[in-house]
Amino acid sequence: MYTAHVRVTLRPSILDPQGKAIRAAVRDLGMPSVQDVRTGKFFEMKVEAESAELAEATVRQACEKLLANPVTEDFTILALVPTETEAA
Amino acid sequence: MYTAHVRVTLRPSILDPQGKAIRAAVRDLGMPSVQDVRTGKFFEMKVEAESAELAEATVRQACEKLLANPVTEDFTILALVPTETEAA
Repeated sequence: MYTAHVRVTLRPSILDPQGKAIRAAVRDLGMPSVQDVRTGKFFEMKVEAESAELAEATVRQACEKLLANPVTEDFTILALVPTETEAA
Repeated sequence: MYTAHVRVTLRPSILDPQGKAIRAAVRDLGMPSVQDVRTGKFFEMKVEAESAELAEATVRQACEKLLANPVTEDFTILALVPTETEAA
């Protein structure tokens, strides 16, 4: 079993209204040093696989097919580590 | 200027219906080896600060006050790196 950490973010060229709203709110809360905020999604996936390569291929496939919009988003596999299988 | 990467995830004890839905969808798309999916938020923040410690304190404060729900979520600062200030 492998555990993957995946980050999905908007492409830099894509406007991030949610990030702009958070930036304004954080500055209103007394943190004027915050210059910019960009938002994204984070996924932790557990994948049953014979090898790290196979696990990574599955994670990549899940990102390409479902988790990341290929037109506006980029995904990055931040980590992929072997994990004990939890007792059934 | 510093750039911080922040991950906000639901506490392990908290049910993640969105993760369950993604798990089912990914398996339906032909990836039965995916055993579990947990969702979260990702933020990239740019903070003007004299030092990394001050930048981290601001990021931590933004998480505690706005980005992470203290009752159901945990936040982690994944990275904090100095960045060139963009030309105005």
